[in-house]
Order: sequence, then C-alpha cells, then structure tokens
Amino acid sequence: MNRRKFLKGSALLSGLLTLNPGDFFASNVQGAPDPKKKAKNIIFMISDGMSSGTLAMANLYSQNILGKNGNWMNLYHDNRVSRALMDTASASSIVTDSAAASSSFGGGFRVKNGVLNVGANGEKYIPVWQKFKKAGKKTGCVTTVTITHATPAGFCINSDSRNAENEIAEMYAEIGFDVMMGGGDEFFNPLKRKDKKDVYDLYKQKGYQILKNKNDLKNTEKGKKILGVFNSGALPYSIDRTHIPELQTTPSLAEMAQTAIDQMKDHKEGFVLQLEGGKVDWAAHANDIAALIHDQLAFDEAVKTAVDFAEKDGNTMVIITTDHGNANPGTIYGAEATKNFDSIASYRYTNEYILNAIHPDFNLQQMKDWIYETNKISLADDEAQHLLSFYSGLEKQEAGLYNYKKLPFKAYSDIQKKHNSVGWISMDHSGDYVEVAVFGPGKELLPAFIKNTDLHYLMLKAAQI
Amino acid sequence: MNRRKFLKGSALLSGLLTLNPGDFFASNVQGAPDPKKKAKNIIFMISDGMSSGTLAMANLYSQNILGKNGNWMNLYHDNRVSRALMDTASASSIVTDSAAASSSFGGGFRVKNGVLNVGANGEKYIPVWQKFKKAGKKTGCVTTVTITHATPAGFCINSDSRNAENEIAEMYAEIGFDVMMGGGDEFFNPLKRKDKKDVYDLYKQKGYQILKNKNDLKNTEKGKKILGVFNSGALPYSIDRTHIPELQTTPSLAEMAQTAIDQMKDHKEGFVLQLEGGKVDWAAHANDIAALIHDQLAFDEAVKTAVDFAEKDGNTMVIITTDHGNANPGTIYGAEATKNFDSIASYRYTNEYILNAIHPDFNLQQMKDWIYETNKISLADDEAQHLLSFYSGLEKQEAGLYNYKKLPFKAYSDIQKKHNSVGWISMDHSGDYVEVAVFGPGKELLPAFIKNTDLHYLMLKAAQI
Repeated sequence: MNRRKFLKGSALLSGLLTLNPGDFFASNVQGAPDPKKKAKNIIFMISDGMSSGTLAMANLYSQNILGKNGNWMNLYHDNRVSRALMDTASASSIVTDSAAASSSFGGGFRVKNGVLNVGANGEKYIPVWQKFKKAGKKTGCVTTVTITHATPAGFCINSDSRNAENEIAEMYAEIGFDVMMGGGDEFFNPLKRKDKKDVYDLYKQKGYQILKNKNDLKNTEKGKKILGVFNSGALPYSIDRTHIPELQTTPSLAEMAQTAIDQMKDHKEGFVLQLEGGKVDWAAHANDIAALIHDQLAFDEAVKTAVDFAEKDGNTMVIITTDHGNANPGTIYGAEATKNFDSIASYRYTNEYILNAIHPDFNLQQMKDWIYETNKISLADDEAQHLLSFYSGLEKQEAGLYNYKKLPFKAYSDIQKKHNSVGWISMDHSGDYVEVAVFGPGKELLPAFIKNTDLHYLMLKAAQI
Repeated sequence: MNRRKFLKGSALLSGLLTLNPGDFFASNVQGAPDPKKKAKNIIFMISDGMSSGTLAMANLYSQNILGKNGNWMNLYHDNRVSRALMDTASASSIVTDSAAASSSFGGGFRVKNGVLNVGANGEKYIPVWQKFKKAGKKTGCVTTVTITHATPAGFCINSDSRNAENEIAEMYAEIGFDVMMGGGDEFFNPLKRKDKKDVYDLYKQKGYQILKNKNDLKNTEKGKKILGVFNSGALPYSIDRTHIPELQTTPSLAEMAQTAIDQMKDHKEGFVLQLEGGKVDWAAHANDIAALIHDQLAFDEAVKTAVDFAEKDGNTMVIITTDHGNANPGTIYGAEATKNFDSIASYRYTNEYILNAIHPDFNLQQMKDWIYETNKISLADDEAQHLLSFYSGLEKQEAGLYNYKKLPFKAYSDIQKKHNSVGWISMDHSGDYVEVAVFGPGKELLPAFIKNTDLHYLMLKAAQI
C-alpha cells in the first residue's frame, strides 16, 4: 500500500499525474513458494492477441457445434487453476505490441513497442529462457507463426527491432536453445535469404536435427536439439489445414507441443517451454471469425496437451494467457444471434483463402457462387459488386499488418457480420485487461491482478531460481 | 463431471448437439458453507452492460487522470475477493437482455429475453428478494435508471414483460420491499400516468416515506420503508451531473447506497440490497465513452461504499458483477493511443447532452465551436457538415433502445474514435463471459466458472436459507 499512498500524494502535488502506463503497483508476486511445490518445469502458453470475447466465442462454438466444453474453461469449471486479470501495457503505450508484451514476460521490464528486451537507454534485460538455460534447464519455443517472431524472440534474445528476423534466426543457434519450432523458412534457407547464408547448416554444425514436416515430429532423436521449420512464413490457419489437403504436411500447435515436451521431459534439471498460438492474433487483425475460432480451438487442444503432461508429471507449472487483446470481437444482441453465430460452423476456409481465390474477371454470379460454396452466405447483388470492386481497382486496396496480399478483409467481415452477429472494434490490438490462468506448483503465487512483467518474476520464484 | 460425460455421450449419438445456450453444466455452486461464516447481509452489485474493456478503461482513466487505482481493482490487488468468469446467456439467446439476465440471478432459471421470472410454459419462479423477505430480512433495490426497470424488477417480481413498468411500480408496494430508490417518476406520479393513478399515495398508505431529491437522503426516518424517486426517467449520467448545476439535486449511486445500507443495517435478521449502475449500459448503447467511464467510476465509488460497510460489519457478502457485456469497447493500438485516451479527461458532457443542444440552424462554425467547447475536439469541415446533416434532415435520424431523441450517436462516436482511440463493436449487448467478484462470507463458494443462474443459489447457500 505504501507505493500507492506515495503515488496518491504525488498526484495531489502535481495536479495531474503522468505515469508510465500501468506502472501503478510494484510487483504483485507475493509470498514465499512452498519448497515442496517447486516448479521443475514451466510451460508458458500464449494465445497471441486473444480478447476476452475470443475465449468466450471459441468455448461457445465448442459447446454449440462440437458438443463439448473447451479445455481451458474445463480447468475453471473443475477449479484446478488460479486466475488473474493482467494489465498488458508497454513502456510506450497503454496498448502493447507483441514484442514489448513478450519482453515484459521475458525480460521482466516494460520496453517500447517494437523492441525486444532493450530499455530506453540501451539496457539489455536478460531474457528469461537464458536465465533458465543458465540454471541447467532445457529451453524451447513452439509457435504457429515464424519461430523468429516477436513472441518467441521475447523469451530468448535482445534486439532493437522485432523485424530483425534474419539475425534472430542466427542468434537462437548461437545461444543454443533446445527445441525451436514454427514457420519462417525464409530466415533459414539460403535460397530465400538475401545474404544467401545457410542458417540450417549453422544449426547442423551446432548439432541440431532439422524437422521440415509433420511426419518428422514422430522420428526425432532423443538428446539432440531440434529446429523445426515447417513453412515459409507462418504455419497455415487451422481451418485451412483441415480443408486443404496440401497444407496437411504441417503440424498443429498441439502436435508440436507434444514433441517438444517429449523431447525435454526427461532432463534431470527440468525444462521450460513457450507455446504460442500466434495466428489467433493474425485472425483478429483480419477480422476473420472462422480463422479466429479455429485457431483458438487449436490453442485449446494444446492446453490439453500441456495440462495432461503437467498433471501426470506433478512438477510442471502451466501458465495460460495472452499478451494483449485484439479487435475485441463479440457476439451481438438480436433475435437471430444464436442461429447466426452457429452458422460459422458452415465456414470452410479463412477469409484470406476465400478472398485470395477471387479474380478480377469474376462475374457477379461467380462471386456469389464462390461465397456460398465457402461460407454458405448468399450475397446480395450489391454486396457481391462491392467486393468485386476491390479487385477491379474501383475501390482502394486494404492494407494491414498481416494483410500481405491487400485483400478486402474489412469489407468482407462487414458483410459476414450481418450473417454471423459477430462484431469487431478495429483491426488492431486493444488495451483491455486479459485473462491469466496458472496450473500446478506455483499457482498459489498468483494474485488476482497483475502487470505483465509480474509473470517474469512469478516464473523465477516458482522455479526457485 | 458426470453431467459433462453424459452430454458428451449424447452429442456423439445425435451428431450435432442442440442445447439451451450455456446449459452445459449443472449448477456450479459446490461445497458446504462454513456455519461460522454465514452471510447475514448480501449486497448484489450490477454494473449493467459492462464489457471487460469498460472495467479496464475506467480503471485506466482512474490511474492516468485521477491518480489512483479503482476500488474494484484494488480488491483484486489486495487479494480480498474470489473471482469467476460468468456465462450470461438467456433461455432464448447466447446474448441476453437485462430482463432475462436479472431473472437468472433473481429467479434461478433462465427465461426468454424480455421476460421477468416467467418460464416458457408460464411457470413463475419466485424472485430472490421475495425469498429473503420471507426469511425475515429487509430487502431493497437502488438503481440509476428507473426503479421499475428490468434489473431491479428481476429480483423482485414476476412479469410477462419488462415494459410493464406502471404495473411493476404497484407490485413493489403490494409486496412491500423496504428500500426502493432510482428514477421513474412517470410510473408513480398521477400527473404523468395515463390512468392518473397516484402510486405515491399507494406507497404512503403502506407506510412508506417518499424521497424526491438528494437532500432527502439525509433526513430519513429509521424503521420506516423508503421509496426514493429522484427523476423522471433515469437519473442523469454522472458526467452531466458534475457539470450541469440543475442536475445536482439528484443523488449518486454511492449516496443512495449509503442511505439504503444505513436504513437496513440494524435489522436483526439482516438485509439484502441490489445496487445497479444502470446507465453504464445506456452509455454503451450510445457508444458514449465519457458517459461510460464516469458512470463506471460512479459504480466503483459504490463498490467502496458497499465493501467499507461489509468489512466493518463482517457478516456481509458483496457480489460485484455485470449482467452482460455491451458493445465491447476498448482502446485501439496506435502511436498516439495513450495521449488520445487521456484526452477523454477534457470531455465535459455526455454525447446525449452535446448532441441534443445542436440546432438545425447551427452554421459550420457554431458546430465546430460547440464541439470544441464540450470535447476539445477540432472538427474538420466535412465532419461538422456530416453531423449537421442529421439535423437538417439530409441524413436519416438514428434510432436505438435508449436513443429517445434520435440523436446521431453513432456518427459522432465514429468522429470521437479518431481522437480518443476507443472503438465499439456495435450499439448493443454482447455475449462475452463477464467478471464476477465476491467479497466476504460465502466467497469460498464461488468456483472459477459459473452460469448466471448459479449466483441465485450462491446467495441462498451463503445465507443458509
């Protein structure tokens, strides 16, 4: 309370208080851990960009369409976790990006958006997986986006820029993490890198086995480090993998997670593993409800993989959270809300796939047929015409962080909204407080409200490092 | 787990499962209450239509602008409450209205949207305040909207329609609740009722004292029942009360709450009290960020009133929650997000007040001056012109549940968004899971995930009735 009282006093003195966003409480991690409940292993799960409504809608879809409750929510129902609300701000904004967010968890300090564990004056905060590595644990990251992306990188390295993915690919090898899996072939492959460097070869020289497709997950050599790069760019969205045969050589998050756990679980000093559902964030950026729900459900499958292991093991803490909200999607009131929401079960592909397949020479009927075939939505003529206008050049192309192909994501999502009763506040991150759940030894250390940086210290305290 | 397994089995049999929304688990309220920790009094607080982002933004505003953390979040920081996520669906939809939502808490059964404690076949579920009244407790409701509105009514009476506010005003008197305060003079006043009935007189005959303005709160007669009706329609929004002198004869939620508690606290058998921040919901329907934040903060002041009493008393359970999300507002990523959000501190009035003061004969400069005077926003010419077009009849008037004056709420909120970085998914309720916190005796009964109906049984169990 002292810090709060102090701040209140200075607010009175200064009239209007200017603080770093969220810098209101000192660390919340309180109390001493039970020495008999030491977290030997830690699995840190991040559904990137998961707003409150994303969690709710994925569970609702699971109940209404799949006939079962989600795994994350089952942990609540059975009272098996501790929970917190988490303030996700960065040093530069009330709304964080994924680099600053992962740095908060990873380095224990808030940094500016865009930066990985580097302070305003160039301070380098030691990334948490390096701390655990030094303590003798095996370390790994698994993601559905590029393995060099902000969220895994924030636990592993320091960099002035999250965009330095070429360099990050090399840094991982130098430091020598044990299991790194995701997408991003373009940062390893000499045929795709501008500098023609063969980064795979660098890993091989360091003794890594290289995995390239889903089947390789079953044939790993125990005791040998793993680099798994299963795609150029991110891995496919779950819903597209389900319906497009040629994407089925890529693994799911749960499949990668299982291999990562199996590879490290017998290590005497334990292991730490980050699991990221990275495309939940991308789906929210695209306002793509089917992509969002199915990737959140894929994350939920990985929750089961992690908790099943942790339960059997007895010495594993599992942290389940997100790094920030994104687009605050939610179901909207109306007489047909339930029926409309349930219609998402008819969606066969992501909006990215659907919109990318549309050609400028589509006529109105072809457009309507294609949308009906893929979403079971009957477009009105003016809706079909409006969509076509983005291809003919009559409407300006849309842009966006992960909209590489400049597809009309917003225009199409606005049309879908009328049929599925799901709305979005924007195509970007939000500053809402987010959900944190902790399973296993150390869960008693979690208070009901935390800052993102608190999770850094929670991990160290739970592992008694 | 048995019920879940059963449902899973039937899902497999039937292919696709069709359930009442949220009807997935039986009641979650588990375990026996500690007989030494009986909740003699219960205060049930509802910030109506509070999305997750509403709670976060009100706290952020409190930190950034007022220099202090909010009271609700302080309870979390100090680990003084138990928390749950709550599924808010109604019998007819994944997205509830306030009548069905209050009936879930109040009657313990989900009913169709629009209905108060009446089942599909006309079953009348006994409202919870009637149960507590029968058990000898004093009973009351305090709200910032009409006292006959859906949320108080759902704890008190049965009605086929939430709109029967004239009848509901009379039903309360017949049943004889102890403290009823809010707005709604038009349902009591013979000069305003179509049937010319003097409902105030009905209350007087039943021994009630009638309060009409804020000063009356200080001069209540102990032991005598209270009807407080402080306005026609709802009470004013908090931000308007602050800046418009003629509204200052009306009390705040915290002021009414304090009087209600003082009036009932010495009753030997205890009391139950509902406190509703009803205009949080209306502000969300209007996409009005200043109205929303300041009414959420007014609710937060009432949290302090309730918890301060409960702490001193030691036998009072305080439930703090909402009945459903609304519009899912949130702050949006961008270089200026913090500065933009903080600019809301310059807003002087609700959008309702601002837009209602605009006349069709305003010229462009008058429009720009007025918006600058009230919101410190410099409108572009085309923005001012666009707003004016709603008054000149060039644009179609907006409609909406609480938009009595058909003001251009949506158009103006879209303009504000560019300046304050706050977005909304719609102008209506959402189906997100919502926040529940419980303080005091009985808090140990709350599991981490509940249905809205569970709170009905939680109250009865905590009070050991």
